[in-house]
Amino acid sequence: MARVVVDVMLKPEILDPQGQAVVAALARLGFDSITAVRQGKRFEVEVDGELTDARLDEVRQAAGTLLANPVIEDFDVRVESAV
Amino acid sequence: MARVVVDVMLKPEILDPQGQAVVAALARLGFDSITAVRQGKRFEVEVDGELTDARLDEVRQAAGTLLANPVIEDFDVRVESAV
Repeated sequence: MARVVVDVMLKPEILDPQGQAVVAALARLGFDSITAVRQGKRFEVEVDGELTDARLDEVRQAAGTLLANPVIEDFDVRVESAV
Repeated sequence: MARVVVDVMLKPEILDPQGQAVVAALARLGFDSITAVRQGKRFEVEVDGELTDARLDEVRQAAGTLLANPVIEDFDVRVESAV
């Protein structure tokens, strides 16, 4: 069983109101050195059996069709443990 | 300016209905080799100036008080770029 992590973040040119709300709240709470926050999603995906190239491609395809909206989001797929 | 990434995931013993919905949808779409998904949050935090230990501690404290709910979530803080 392998674990693959998919990080999904809004593209840099897309406004992120969630992140803006977080950075404003941090400033009110006194965390002055934090100047910007962007919020995205992290998926921990477990893949059955050995992590072949075909199975990793399947995860990439799932990320591009279901986990991320490629119109407004970028995603990054990386293997965390291939055991 | 340094960039720090904060990953927030539900603790393993906490039920994750979002992740369960994702894995059920993936199965319906034919992604058979994916057996489990857990969904969490990823924050990209920008810190002003040099990343001193004090500033990194500030990010850790912000993560533990605002970004994550430590009752049900674990978080992980890591430096992505310290320039």
